[in-house]
Amino acid sequence: MTARIDFNCDMGESFGAYQMGQDEEIIKHITSANIACGFHAGDPNWMRLTVKLAEEHGVAMGAHPSFPDLPGFGRRNMAVAPGEAKNDIIYQIGALTAFTSAKRLQHVKPHGAMYNMAVRDEALARSICEAILEVDPELILVALAGSRWIDRARDMGLRVAREAFADRAVNADGTLVPRSKPGSVIEDVGAVARRSVKMVTQGKVTAITGEEIALSADTLCLHGDTPNSIHLASSIRSALESEGVQIVPLGQIV
Amino acid sequence: MTARIDFNCDMGESFGAYQMGQDEEIIKHITSANIACGFHAGDPNWMRLTVKLAEEHGVAMGAHPSFPDLPGFGRRNMAVAPGEAKNDIIYQIGALTAFTSAKRLQHVKPHGAMYNMAVRDEALARSICEAILEVDPELILVALAGSRWIDRARDMGLRVAREAFADRAVNADGTLVPRSKPGSVIEDVGAVARRSVKMVTQGKVTAITGEEIALSADTLCLHGDTPNSIHLASSIRSALESEGVQIVPLGQIV
Amino acid sequence: MTARIDFNCDMGESFGAYQMGQDEEIIKHITSANIACGFHAGDPNWMRLTVKLAEEHGVAMGAHPSFPDLPGFGRRNMAVAPGEAKNDIIYQIGALTAFTSAKRLQHVKPHGAMYNMAVRDEALARSICEAILEVDPELILVALAGSRWIDRARDMGLRVAREAFADRAVNADGTLVPRSKPGSVIEDVGAVARRSVKMVTQGKVTAITGEEIALSADTLCLHGDTPNSIHLASSIRSALESEGVQIVPLGQIV
Amino acid sequence: MTARIDFNCDMGESFGAYQMGQDEEIIKHITSANIACGFHAGDPNWMRLTVKLAEEHGVAMGAHPSFPDLPGFGRRNMAVAPGEAKNDIIYQIGALTAFTSAKRLQHVKPHGAMYNMAVRDEALARSICEAILEVDPELILVALAGSRWIDRARDMGLRVAREAFADRAVNADGTLVPRSKPGSVIEDVGAVARRSVKMVTQGKVTAITGEEIALSADTLCLHGDTPNSIHLASSIRSALESEGVQIVPLGQIV
Repeated sequence: MTARIDFNCDMGESFGAYQMGQDEEIIKHITSANIACGFHAGDPNWMRLTVKLAEEHGVAMGAHPSFPDLPGFGRRNMAVAPGEAKNDIIYQIGALTAFTSAKRLQHVKPHGAMYNMAVRDEALARSICEAILEVDPELILVALAGSRWIDRARDMGLRVAREAFADRAVNADGTLVPRSKPGSVIEDVGAVARRSVKMVTQGKVTAITGEEIALSADTLCLHGDTPNSIHLASSIRSALESEGVQIVPLGQIV
Repeated sequence: MTARIDFNCDMGESFGAYQMGQDEEIIKHITSANIACGFHAGDPNWMRLTVKLAEEHGVAMGAHPSFPDLPGFGRRNMAVAPGEAKNDIIYQIGALTAFTSAKRLQHVKPHGAMYNMAVRDEALARSICEAILEVDPELILVALAGSRWIDRARDMGLRVAREAFADRAVNADGTLVPRSKPGSVIEDVGAVARRSVKMVTQGKVTAITGEEIALSADTLCLHGDTPNSIHLASSIRSALESEGVQIVPLGQIV
Repeated sequence: MTARIDFNCDMGESFGAYQMGQDEEIIKHITSANIACGFHAGDPNWMRLTVKLAEEHGVAMGAHPSFPDLPGFGRRNMAVAPGEAKNDIIYQIGALTAFTSAKRLQHVKPHGAMYNMAVRDEALARSICEAILEVDPELILVALAGSRWIDRARDMGLRVAREAFADRAVNADGTLVPRSKPGSVIEDVGAVARRSVKMVTQGKVTAITGEEIALSADTLCLHGDTPNSIHLASSIRSALESEGVQIVPLGQIV
Repeated sequence: MTARIDFNCDMGESFGAYQMGQDEEIIKHITSANIACGFHAGDPNWMRLTVKLAEEHGVAMGAHPSFPDLPGFGRRNMAVAPGEAKNDIIYQIGALTAFTSAKRLQHVKPHGAMYNMAVRDEALARSICEAILEVDPELILVALAGSRWIDRARDMGLRVAREAFADRAVNADGTLVPRSKPGSVIEDVGAVARRSVKMVTQGKVTAITGEEIALSADTLCLHGDTPNSIHLASSIRSALESEGVQIVPLGQIV
């Protein structure tokens, strides 16, 4: 069978008069867009524009819900009760869905602190899954490859996509090396491309400590906010395609 | 044919730690609930509770979108561009819809300043209609009986419900007497009940200047936030039912 | 020397159309008001009204700053960086100060999650102290009696008021028994009054486990939001005054 | 007497993760900074940074208060009651003041829609003046040269600075030509510089219809958000200085 992978990227993170990212460029290189829903970034006007952009490029869309923290861009951990997080997520998925032509999304990928906390906090992870199931059981959850959150979501009956970060170093147990540590971000474009190929075609990656470990992914997270993003995206794509890997939206993979 | 009327009431206007209204009481007396969507009042947690309350009582649900003005409770006119208002409304309809079991609402009734401005501002009125059509063309718009907004919405192909305010005096041209004027609010419960019966069964009302004018309505707006609300609601209902009028949700009328 | 104690209460926690508390009653019973500054509750209009109320009753005023969390009423822990918390606090102190006739406040008492986190989180505790020193070194910090936060603030040169909760049970180490545990809140008014007298006149309190422990306080926290609040406040006051204790604002104590 | 003029510019309009403007460049060319206070832009962290920047460059500081409209960047007219606008302004002035070393500002210049509405709406204009007088009667109001707002403020005893826009065409009655009309913005840098010199040294300007009209100004508004801003600022400065005009903060002029 042909290897397949999805490219996802956070989008629509402008707000009012403030622009962020280079959505119009990066959209050409991805297959799934995670669209901000107004709680950490984005607003109804930017959501319309971003949905339109994704639809024009045939890119699948997902909600990118967050804790309610506009001043902190959703990057600050918050002790939101699981039931409250569930409601915040349902609200955001619904708001975004209404802008789409199909009145349906492909996936949900929590943002920033909510994503990171869910990797460790089982109650939060469950509440995210419950929110998705309640709105539309066909929606795919995007969560960190190798995390217990993935297992939990599958147990609950969700469609799940395992996400990997091509330019981030991993520990021997598959967790991400924190950004504060040296070597956590892989800067060399060629290295990132080779790493991506290995991950997708062999389900393996070399840990920062040198071991080769198993790491399978359904989607790679690209960044749209650095000058280098576009170059990196097309390099990874070329490397993968030359190995016969198909870059397709999540809905065709999981 | 039997005369029919809907009773609508604004609900879910609590926010976080702040409670407002007596939703659990008034819900027993109405057929359609206008549920706040977080822009002037309401939040994801209160939206869930209010949707649950309405579903348990078999009350039809609608979105009650507003300009983004939490500190002003959506009562302050804002020069929101029509295209922006449209997006704000789509966002709010979508957010509320996601909490319902059916993933579908019955109606949309704009709140406060947005409602009042739309009566006079044709561009805003149009943008509200466009928002509704874009999300779901089956959704019913609730707008002021006798206003050009009603005609405009029908021209655009919307299902429209004409709303009357049983306890508010009207001018000879059918517009509401402003609250700042004496006699604008009718306090006598019996008078409000008789007035409601005449409006529903004969399509007429007596203006503040004494003339009998034509005023047909599909729905009566009740208030849920005064001590007197419950008594008024049940008095109007009794008066109407004793004249053979059926109190049913909007969806069975328009 | 005559024993002295201050009575403080959170006030001005209404927001827009939402009212909370019974400020006009409780103000008669306290000597220091902690006024919400818009981040968890309160807004510029309520701040003006609350400042006016306090000034009319000769009650000393303090800022009651919070993490930026209106939907959560400032009760949710947030991983706000110390430098950000410092700036949030400076902003809120300044905003409130501008409404006072004297353009000066007496004290600062952080709200909810910020207060509770500062008891344990030394970096946050420091940043709160730095904010106060930067705005006005004469401002008094109100912090939990017996906590390291008190020592830290004194080391930094702040005027500090030790706060006790007359109706809350304490563990043998002086910390509060969490609300989730049985017996954490003392309901009997007479018991709370006797407890307050002992604390103020002898600097002692009986822990939930029976031991008599040292606990000195400069201010007692009263609540303004329960039906019982007013009765409790006047009972404690009577009990203290009959023992010759003077109830005076913090500025006359620390 | 030597002619004097102040250069003012809006600053600190970044928010959270969103950057706006080129404050670090434009600060070198101005004498008064109007600093956003969190209602249309800015937040406590950016306010600290912007105050620090202004203090390091010896630039005088003022508050740049707005209606509460973060999604609309304070550019949308809002029917805020005069008493509410007054409180919103007091709040914002106080918040900014607390970040300054001197705990004192030089001036207040309302932002966007609030500024434009005050030119025509006398009740709003009065409420802005009342807010300033209440916080600190030494604060200078910056308002549109030639407007009745200027007269009103002087009647109320305020120190007032008349503001002109060097790159904007004016009608024969001194009002600004709306941006929607051709010729409203003067693009030629040399023309703007000559226009500035004439305004400052002769108190005159040529209207779009050709007449020479009287227009005296105490401060020129520069923009910090276009690529051309820095070049324009230094050109105007050179032209003025070569005519012996001194560029000094408002506090030395009015």
